[in-house]
Amino acid sequence: MKRPLGIFDSGIGGLTVLKEIIRVLPEEDTIYLGDTARVPYGTKSPDTVIRYSLENARFLLKFEIKALVVACNTASAYALQRLSGEIAVPVIGVIMPGVKKAVEVTRNKKIGIIGTDGTVRSNAYTNAIKALAPDMSVFSKACPLFVPLAEEGWIDNEIAFLTARDYLSELRDKEIDTLVLGCTHYPLLRNVIAQVIGQEVSLIDSGQETAAEISKVLKERNLLDSNPHTEPSRKFFVTDSPERFIQVSKKFLGTTLDKVEKVDMMQYNIHNPAV
Amino acid sequence: MKRPLGIFDSGIGGLTVLKEIIRVLPEEDTIYLGDTARVPYGTKSPDTVIRYSLENARFLLKFEIKALVVACNTASAYALQRLSGEIAVPVIGVIMPGVKKAVEVTRNKKIGIIGTDGTVRSNAYTNAIKALAPDMSVFSKACPLFVPLAEEGWIDNEIAFLTARDYLSELRDKEIDTLVLGCTHYPLLRNVIAQVIGQEVSLIDSGQETAAEISKVLKERNLLDSNPHTEPSRKFFVTDSPERFIQVSKKFLGTTLDKVEKVDMMQYNIHNPAV
Repeated sequence: MKRPLGIFDSGIGGLTVLKEIIRVLPEEDTIYLGDTARVPYGTKSPDTVIRYSLENARFLLKFEIKALVVACNTASAYALQRLSGEIAVPVIGVIMPGVKKAVEVTRNKKIGIIGTDGTVRSNAYTNAIKALAPDMSVFSKACPLFVPLAEEGWIDNEIAFLTARDYLSELRDKEIDTLVLGCTHYPLLRNVIAQVIGQEVSLIDSGQETAAEISKVLKERNLLDSNPHTEPSRKFFVTDSPERFIQVSKKFLGTTLDKVEKVDMMQYNIHNPAV
Repeated sequence: MKRPLGIFDSGIGGLTVLKEIIRVLPEEDTIYLGDTARVPYGTKSPDTVIRYSLENARFLLKFEIKALVVACNTASAYALQRLSGEIAVPVIGVIMPGVKKAVEVTRNKKIGIIGTDGTVRSNAYTNAIKALAPDMSVFSKACPLFVPLAEEGWIDNEIAFLTARDYLSELRDKEIDTLVLGCTHYPLLRNVIAQVIGQEVSLIDSGQETAAEISKVLKERNLLDSNPHTEPSRKFFVTDSPERFIQVSKKFLGTTLDKVEKVDMMQYNIHNPAV
């Protein structure tokens, strides 16, 4: 039996991670869940994010997934440990792969992190970098306007440029040589971020590093698709009405989705013992 | 017994409405619920917004409120009829008061509406204006960046100006003489909106008009506070952790909140018959 990869995000941003997974592992079946009824996670508390993440995982486990990808930085920051403890399949978040790459490529040991309020407040990136390489200096900055800019498609106009300049000036002053895009929306703004922070700064795309990590984990555990010549199945679920998701998804995935189903998370509620 | 006014919003924006209520009715007790665990409503479907609104009302009704203020445009657009049908106390939304005022002040019968995606897609303002005055021309525009700009406090910088110019140029071209701020966050951006749209255009602040409407309804029904010399009680509840709400609330309410309680909406779930 062909078992799919399960991927969840708070909404649409995780599609940039899925796009990288499809690029690296084109034959694998995938199931994507965007929790659009409860987006964003970035402003919510750790307890709430953990609860939502467990419910999302519960839904995806019904499809006998062979690995769970937490394609959301806030959920990776707050819920990865709990998910790994409760779920039998490998759980891969978007934080560690980017952290490892950043530590690997920095020359001057000054690493910048940009993300949502929640991701930055969690200190997840800073703590992970310090645990791996205590001699690194880490500077982080929340960039709350970047998500609506990406969704609006304002990725190369003057507003995007000025917003990036405002947010990134602190990090420029710190002379970082490596910058982690710690939010799945940010790859859409890659050009303007690179322009503002300077071409000499290495940009780390968490989605790319996560896809590479998933490929490695599947190989190690002998979980790669054994029958790669069948057409891969791609399922998409959201927790609110699919219209807006379908409309915005093209910017994130590069292709138009024709079928996105709505799922009622109520039945996956962690206080509901019936599931 | 002194019965309070109950006010709910999807998050923090409704505090601009509360601020106006306090200005017009300073002696009334108030209970504010910000559904911060599920914010924003603007991108969610009508069914979801109705369900959340019923749950919020259910919570506030426990305090024996004498009127319910729906201080959220999306909830007013989708859920007002349902709430009015199910609840015994007067229910006042933020759409009709602004609509009435706009129809009253326009000279050239060209009215502009700005709001979130959800509010604009709902056509609630357009339909309400057309029902009241069929000869009006109504032009609406979603301005999704305005909410994060207001929360970031970027209300008078170049980014706010350019964003306003981009969003409002269509409405300028239509030569509207009246513009309804159809989102509770937008009063914070009032100056930049006025500057871009032109000083000759009347700006209608839904919060101000809603506060006047509440005062009128309370008077008509003889529900005004009969003992106005006691210190009014102000209670604040949120559905996620209060830290960020407290931090951002000063921008919206003008004062710092010292006590905000977290409430678990799970127990007010409309599928839960026990409440």
